[in-house]
Amino acid sequence: MFSLTVSDHIMVAHSFQGEEFGPAQRVHGATFVVEAEFRAPRLDRLQLLVDIGLAKTELRRVLDAIDYTNLDDYPAFKGTNTTTEFLAYHIHGQLAAACHEGRLGEGGRAVSGLKITLRESPNAWAAYEADLG
Amino acid sequence: MFSLTVSDHIMVAHSFQGEEFGPAQRVHGATFVVEAEFRAPRLDRLQLLVDIGLAKTELRRVLDAIDYTNLDDYPAFKGTNTTTEFLAYHIHGQLAAACHEGRLGEGGRAVSGLKITLRESPNAWAAYEADLG
Amino acid sequence: MFSLTVSDHIMVAHSFQGEEFGPAQRVHGATFVVEAEFRAPRLDRLQLLVDIGLAKTELRRVLDAIDYTNLDDYPAFKGTNTTTEFLAYHIHGQLAAACHEGRLGEGGRAVSGLKITLRESPNAWAAYEADLG
Amino acid sequence: MFSLTVSDHIMVAHSFQGEEFGPAQRVHGATFVVEAEFRAPRLDRLQLLVDIGLAKTELRRVLDAIDYTNLDDYPAFKGTNTTTEFLAYHIHGQLAAACHEGRLGEGGRAVSGLKITLRESPNAWAAYEADLG
Amino acid sequence: MFSLTVSDHIMVAHSFQGEEFGPAQRVHGATFVVEAEFRAPRLDRLQLLVDIGLAKTELRRVLDAIDYTNLDDYPAFKGTNTTTEFLAYHIHGQLAAACHEGRLGEGGRAVSGLKITLRESPNAWAAYEADLG
Amino acid sequence: MFSLTVSDHIMVAHSFQGEEFGPAQRVHGATFVVEAEFRAPRLDRLQLLVDIGLAKTELRRVLDAIDYTNLDDYPAFKGTNTTTEFLAYHIHGQLAAACHEGRLGEGGRAVSGLKITLRESPNAWAAYEADLG
Repeated sequence: MFSLTVSDHIMVAHSFQGEEFGPAQRVHGATFVVEAEFRAPRLDRLQLLVDIGLAKTELRRVLDAIDYTNLDDYPAFKGTNTTTEFLAYHIHGQLAAACHEGRLGEGGRAVSGLKITLRESPNAWAAYEADLG
Repeated sequence: MFSLTVSDHIMVAHSFQGEEFGPAQRVHGATFVVEAEFRAPRLDRLQLLVDIGLAKTELRRVLDAIDYTNLDDYPAFKGTNTTTEFLAYHIHGQLAAACHEGRLGEGGRAVSGLKITLRESPNAWAAYEADLG
Repeated sequence: MFSLTVSDHIMVAHSFQGEEFGPAQRVHGATFVVEAEFRAPRLDRLQLLVDIGLAKTELRRVLDAIDYTNLDDYPAFKGTNTTTEFLAYHIHGQLAAACHEGRLGEGGRAVSGLKITLRESPNAWAAYEADLG
Repeated sequence: MFSLTVSDHIMVAHSFQGEEFGPAQRVHGATFVVEAEFRAPRLDRLQLLVDIGLAKTELRRVLDAIDYTNLDDYPAFKGTNTTTEFLAYHIHGQLAAACHEGRLGEGGRAVSGLKITLRESPNAWAAYEADLG
Repeated sequence: MFSLTVSDHIMVAHSFQGEEFGPAQRVHGATFVVEAEFRAPRLDRLQLLVDIGLAKTELRRVLDAIDYTNLDDYPAFKGTNTTTEFLAYHIHGQLAAACHEGRLGEGGRAVSGLKITLRESPNAWAAYEADLG
Repeated sequence: MFSLTVSDHIMVAHSFQGEEFGPAQRVHGATFVVEAEFRAPRLDRLQLLVDIGLAKTELRRVLDAIDYTNLDDYPAFKGTNTTTEFLAYHIHGQLAAACHEGRLGEGGRAVSGLKITLRESPNAWAAYEADLG
């Protein structure tokens, strides 16, 4: 199995609902380093898994929608805690769709698995991975 | 599949038995950066895999038992080389038990897999991973 | 010249005033990895520059005052853009005072220079350094 | 499952054929940090997966064949784009053979899986992994 | 003294003249992570040292001139070994000029010192720093 | 001013004398990543500050004397706490001597400053720097 990973980052504010979150119930923020790992069982004739330029462009496009914002104001997230785990899942859905829609070219259509990792600090990170059908 | 990882570190001394170890047969030491990756197929209603505060506390509790010690003096390790691989396995067992015993809350009981990685230097690390039944 | 550095991090929200900031005029956030470098021309009889435990405790105490908050709500920062440069300067002042007040012990009183670095993302960071009189 | 990873690096030049590569069609270069992850379901009586000294030696031997070269001049790569994905696959084949041939000792013969990761920049890397039969 | 640092990277090929270079006399390559540290004794009214957007843009502009090239073909470098130290000096000159010419705005004109660091591998890097008059 | 830095690491055991050290009074250990920064105001005709191969060899030679040992057994350290700060000073003395003795060639004799940094964990490091006369 091959994989190709590109990374980028976002700087967002948010707050959490639930006593379990302690001080994180307050509006605070995070720099999330976002890593998108594309997997496929084989390379194309150019020896590429996906076009790395397209991969970076699509990851940025997905991140632009939430970068430099307060996620609490984002309608799609109303009533949902935007935990690191959840954001990994959210970005996964967006990039999986980009692959299906052909935004990452033929290579993107052939991607068989996708893993999104968000690093929130030097000692905590979360990920979501799933096969792409 | 979701995952959440927290990291911490320990500073221990030890020595190895066996000619294969060369100079590492002498008492020496290591800073081990320890990463604990918890896996689960879904998040709870708060969008959490496990409570990250409990995860850090339990990892620290497990590490406290061996931090700032000479592992050669630790009874449970008598006659066993405390290689990086072995220590990953040892910590895995301790944290898996913590999940089963409910020390990481309901989220911990729902953890389906656990991977422990120990980084011993910038160019060597080891891990042990297993499903939690 | 000797130096000892300890690091920690904070997760804060804030917004900036001024067209120059573009999208960062919106409420957003950051994980700031904060490095505090203490400098002194000599070590004490124990071969220490400052007690590393006290250094970590005081850095944490300074950071606790702003960690998991929206800096826009912090009275001391009203009318001031809490840029990375500014926050380095702010934390510098707090830790320099801690040294002068003896919170870092005799070693802290002997500190001759202090540098605070804040890393806001993998590709941007800022610092403030000054001699302590 | 256990794993042991060692890393090293190479500094190579190369160029790519295909309009998709844009400026990378020109002769350029890269520092590739190469990580070799060996996997096995159990450790030997010394608590080792593979001898880490042999692992580093064999990884270096494989890398020496291409380190400080222009990959465009390497006969085995004629007509093939030496993308990061491809180089991971190439190194995988060489190290898998080293395991099979006994160059990594008994531990190497017991390796059940091998993953090679090449990091080309702070925000892009690729890997190839496969079971060893 | 304040400082602000931005980083980026280039992927270049080159070769060195002189027996001292051993295998690096051959055409090979490197990913250079380039860090540009701007220094100034005070911030502007917005609490900025320099506009970070302009800093990133100008660093990229300087790097674009050599990114994805074989430095051996670059006329300005004929007869000169493009060592890491030399490239730091070269980029320093280009960015210092950008400050003087006002490409980094008023903040750039007020920059009193500039340090360029190039990381060529995990265990080697070089820098050039000088005051800007 | 130019600088060239090379890094390596050691894995040592030791213990500290003095109640201030708390649990670190016990025999424990550390992986120290050691960075040696050589400074000089100009490069030689090959555009080198020092021969990087010689720099790595001499750093390794200095480290070999203490690598994989218990520093408590090292005669030169009897009665001295081998703190991170102290070890930086010790290694600085050894490498400075290597420069003076010509072990780093003509470039080494021209080195005007040397800084040794030892990283003991992800969140603590120490350094010693001094001009070479």
